Amino acid sequence: MTAIDTVAIVGAGLLGQGWAIVFARAGKTVRIFDARDDAEAQIRPQIVAALAEMQAAGLCDAPDDWLAQMSFAKTLGDAVGAADYVQESTFERIDVKREISAAISAVLPEHAICGSSTSGFPGSAFLDHCDNRARMLVMHPVNPPHLVPIVEIVPTPWTDPAVPVRARALMEEVGQSPVSLDREIPGFVLNRLQGALLDEAFALLAEGYASAEDIDRTVRDGLGLRWAFMGPFETIDLNAPKGLADYAERLGPMFAGFAEQRQADRDWRPEAVARADAERREALPETGLADRRNWRDAMLMAILRAKQQG
Amino acid sequence: MTAIDTVAIVGAGLLGQGWAIVFARAGKTVRIFDARDDAEAQIRPQIVAALAEMQAAGLCDAPDDWLAQMSFAKTLGDAVGAADYVQESTFERIDVKREISAAISAVLPEHAICGSSTSGFPGSAFLDHCDNRARMLVMHPVNPPHLVPIVEIVPTPWTDPAVPVRARALMEEVGQSPVSLDREIPGFVLNRLQGALLDEAFALLAEGYASAEDIDRTVRDGLGLRWAFMGPFETIDLNAPKGLADYAERLGPMFAGFAEQRQADRDWRPEAVARADAERREALPETGLADRRNWRDAMLMAILRAKQQG
Repeated sequence: MTAIDTVAIVGAGLLGQGWAIVFARAGKTVRIFDARDDAEAQIRPQIVAALAEMQAAGLCDAPDDWLAQMSFAKTLGDAVGAADYVQESTFERIDVKREISAAISAVLPEHAICGSSTSGFPGSAFLDHCDNRARMLVMHPVNPPHLVPIVEIVPTPWTDPAVPVRARALMEEVGQSPVSLDREIPGFVLNRLQGALLDEAFALLAEGYASAEDIDRTVRDGLGLRWAFMGPFETIDLNAPKGLADYAERLGPMFAGFAEQRQADRDWRPEAVARADAERREALPETGLADRRNWRDAMLMAILRAKQQG
Repeated sequence: MTAIDTVAIVGAGLLGQGWAIVFARAGKTVRIFDARDDAEAQIRPQIVAALAEMQAAGLCDAPDDWLAQMSFAKTLGDAVGAADYVQESTFERIDVKREISAAISAVLPEHAICGSSTSGFPGSAFLDHCDNRARMLVMHPVNPPHLVPIVEIVPTPWTDPAVPVRARALMEEVGQSPVSLDREIPGFVLNRLQGALLDEAFALLAEGYASAEDIDRTVRDGLGLRWAFMGPFETIDLNAPKGLADYAERLGPMFAGFAEQRQADRDWRPEAVARADAERREALPETGLADRRNWRDAMLMAILRAKQQG
């Protein structure tokens, strides 16, 4: 097995830039390719700004060193041809994914792996026609990947079983938190869990049980405080004297009752969406969204620091 | 409207002790009644220990001052008769709740409110027979309430509508985060949201898509990092260019698809419970649960500090 020293970033919007930081932080040589004209002039200042924010938050000691690990390639072949690992983060449209995947496959070194950042498409929908599909798979991050470590690793039916294992080892090596899926499923794990909670949130709102703000509070001042450092299984494991099975025996029937009540009604009702949006826009005008996203990233950094020190 | 200066704590296990800290922290006079023999000798050292932990975590400047706000009553009448607000936190069994509620009602000053900490019973199941049921309701905290600020306020059909409004103002005054429910629903908001996510987690585990550990990672290194400071609605509000309605339009159909696939199958399958428990016990023997709960509380304190500084 070849060590992974050089990583190619294909597509360097916010997601690709975050990936570049992840790999540079771990000492990898990072080759960035973005098809936009004048890509380096656009992208480099954004990466510099992100590194400055991390430094201010105590999450980056040496931004110049990290930046020195990165360089920009003029062509796809220049970036991918020298790579041991490729992270594709192009625009989330199936025809774009199909085209870029074939182009990467055509120049992929014979030992290299290519992961796609797609959040919505199964790999089998855009990797089927690639010659090197046995070494291609989905590596789904959350934005921004340099602050949110989770990465979902999802093989296609054609992926060589050794490939997700190597990809997982790479993610662990660079400080990400890999989740290995056995096979494809719509939404992978993360969006399915998020969707299940959102379904219930929209149903409670539609039926007038509580306001959107109060439902948000229930998570950010209750459930989410724990879920920032323990998953749902570990949480219930600590909440019964003898652990998880004990908890399921005591409380499983109660939870099953909630589910039965809801089975017929798991869509996001338009009136609930309209009400939640109206509440949000009253709390935060659309013009304030960009600043609030910066606040979110600052909070993520503070919580990451708290988790690191714990 | 009378100001709330004196609070009675009825039942002082871990939950009641946490409530005593919450009210003392806010400068209230706290009268504690617990039916156990030698209650003060058992309970006071536990509160002293909890305050020392908060002080070490930077969440309590003056533990002695907080302790000085608290005193122990010999009888229920001694505690409740002088109270403006009563927090009942006795053992979670319906006959216990019915009996203590009637006893509190019988000595409740005519201006006072009584909230029950029940996590599982609707107030209408144990307050119906109380003379003062118009001033009684559910005030559901999460353990430990001095570290997790959420409180669900749930009126019964008989609760005077002014009472939940006063109770909410009190919770805001003492630094808790109140959630106002319009009416009763099994599981209130918090356990319904938790249950929806757990349903999906157990289903993914049962079908072999991922391990319990990897599903936990997806939350603690992904979704939960955000949910520790933003609710589910605010999270998606920041994840589409024009906010929540924009997000629902783009991604609602994808999420609806997950739900349809699951409708027939929302119970916690026994084999999934057994598998999750086996994984947990391999990661942490039952003898390690107590230490891990202490770690959980330390992490909660670190994240609370991070949120306060943000």
